[in-house]
Amino acid sequence: MTTYALTRGHGTANDFVLLADLDGAADLSPEAVALLCDRRRGVGGDGLIRVVRSAAAGIPEAVDAHTVGAEWFMDYRNADGSIAEMCGNGVRVFAHHLVEHGFVDLAAGPLAVGTRAGVKHVARVPDPTGAQEAWYRVDMGRWEFPRPITEGADSLVDTAGIDVPRPAISVDMGNPHTVVALAGAEELAAADLTRLPAVDPLPVHGTNVEYIVIEPDHDGDPSTGRLAMRVHERGVGETQSCGTGACAAALAARFWAGSNGPTTWTIALPGGTVEVEISESSVALSGPAVLIGDVVPTAEFAAALAAR
Amino acid sequence: MTTYALTRGHGTANDFVLLADLDGAADLSPEAVALLCDRRRGVGGDGLIRVVRSAAAGIPEAVDAHTVGAEWFMDYRNADGSIAEMCGNGVRVFAHHLVEHGFVDLAAGPLAVGTRAGVKHVARVPDPTGAQEAWYRVDMGRWEFPRPITEGADSLVDTAGIDVPRPAISVDMGNPHTVVALAGAEELAAADLTRLPAVDPLPVHGTNVEYIVIEPDHDGDPSTGRLAMRVHERGVGETQSCGTGACAAALAARFWAGSNGPTTWTIALPGGTVEVEISESSVALSGPAVLIGDVVPTAEFAAALAAR
Repeated sequence: MTTYALTRGHGTANDFVLLADLDGAADLSPEAVALLCDRRRGVGGDGLIRVVRSAAAGIPEAVDAHTVGAEWFMDYRNADGSIAEMCGNGVRVFAHHLVEHGFVDLAAGPLAVGTRAGVKHVARVPDPTGAQEAWYRVDMGRWEFPRPITEGADSLVDTAGIDVPRPAISVDMGNPHTVVALAGAEELAAADLTRLPAVDPLPVHGTNVEYIVIEPDHDGDPSTGRLAMRVHERGVGETQSCGTGACAAALAARFWAGSNGPTTWTIALPGGTVEVEISESSVALSGPAVLIGDVVPTAEFAAALAAR
Repeated sequence: MTTYALTRGHGTANDFVLLADLDGAADLSPEAVALLCDRRRGVGGDGLIRVVRSAAAGIPEAVDAHTVGAEWFMDYRNADGSIAEMCGNGVRVFAHHLVEHGFVDLAAGPLAVGTRAGVKHVARVPDPTGAQEAWYRVDMGRWEFPRPITEGADSLVDTAGIDVPRPAISVDMGNPHTVVALAGAEELAAADLTRLPAVDPLPVHGTNVEYIVIEPDHDGDPSTGRLAMRVHERGVGETQSCGTGACAAALAARFWAGSNGPTTWTIALPGGTVEVEISESSVALSGPAVLIGDVVPTAEFAAALAAR
């Protein structure tokens, strides 16, 4: 019988099943992943993260990662068992899992994590909220504004619960985002995200939509800003957190603030707080990672997994 | 530091966090229960079941249970931390937990389980579906039709997606149910249970609504019947399974079939299959129970629980 070393964890309420498969011995079908992520019949999660040594992962991108010295690979699967490239919240939980199980020591410097979207560098940072959670900072790579922006916008978003279509900025973070600024907390609460927002023009592969409310000059420090955000994820609906969405929100907020605007943004999501730092061509996301518990499957559940 | 012996389990996709607190040592605040049941930040479940010896539970109903010889007590909490009386799917999972951990042996006869709704008797039975899952049968106690039924109905239910209001029968299972028969699988699929059905007259404390499609003479045996069902649970919305709802559905189906109608009903729910046996004044529910895995909380999660 295969044994499964499972852990449940989350980053700002984006939750995962972690499978410690250090030497690449696991043989997990998409159906077994779907059962593990099933919130009622399984362990439950937005996705599964296989924690595996790059050299043993059996994945072309992991061979590349191994070549450039990234010992560990994050093999991320969606809850339906399909393969995903990267997950900004997941990579923090991945690093926390390795730290807590004693496999890596981030006091020595950032951890290089292989992913299907390239090698990411994860560093331990202090929790700026004072909640004393374990915080990690990860480079999220390059970004761009894919469309010319005229008078602060390149598109319009029409949303249930909001009176008229609002101007928005498109941001490419590897995946597509459309960021809309709203007037205040009441309007943010009024947006009905159970329905699909109408984005015009709609990117060909669809888009995530971020609704933000920028806090005016929150602490007198012009280098830092603060915003609240809700997100409608493409193909999913409203979620409590989206790592690339938080980055897109900070980039749009910085654009609207002008070239002297803040480069560090604290972002309050329904699932928790994250921080985004903007540099010339790339962006870094910091946030908490929590491990909930190790899950020891029963024989009956292990048999159900193996039968899939 | 308090230790928590946790297990995740489900019965027809109605899922639970089980806490083995055999000698009543746990001190769980409603907030800690809510965190344990949180599907993203905790272990996740529809509710928490504390497994405790009746003599040690510290609950008046458990003292009564102990007096009549029920060694074990099911202390059921809703996902928000509030107290609940009973759970038809939960009591099977409770029994399975005791069996699998070696505390009881159901080969010797039914297990008496103390609950806030009185002592329930749980027996191990063969899985009639052939899936070889662990099946348990539990007496669900007395039932009644609370209102006079005229021409096969005592109320009307108006449902989004269904053309006109349909006749229905009210069933009191300790909690209120309203059962509506639909014409076929297409109509059952068309019912939009994301919206609250309009029940006329509406019971003063509201009602669960069961939509059923009775299979005509499914195997030539007049003592057995078969139906498909969807359920809208009061205060919750559509769920994949409801134990008392399945009993109510069988009772209404039996009424509509006439006094020679089937007394044993196989019920296909979205979450799985259960069986209901009707006798003169009481009803028994049989169905599967699955244990998914034991959950060993991390120190950080145990600290978060203790702080609540």
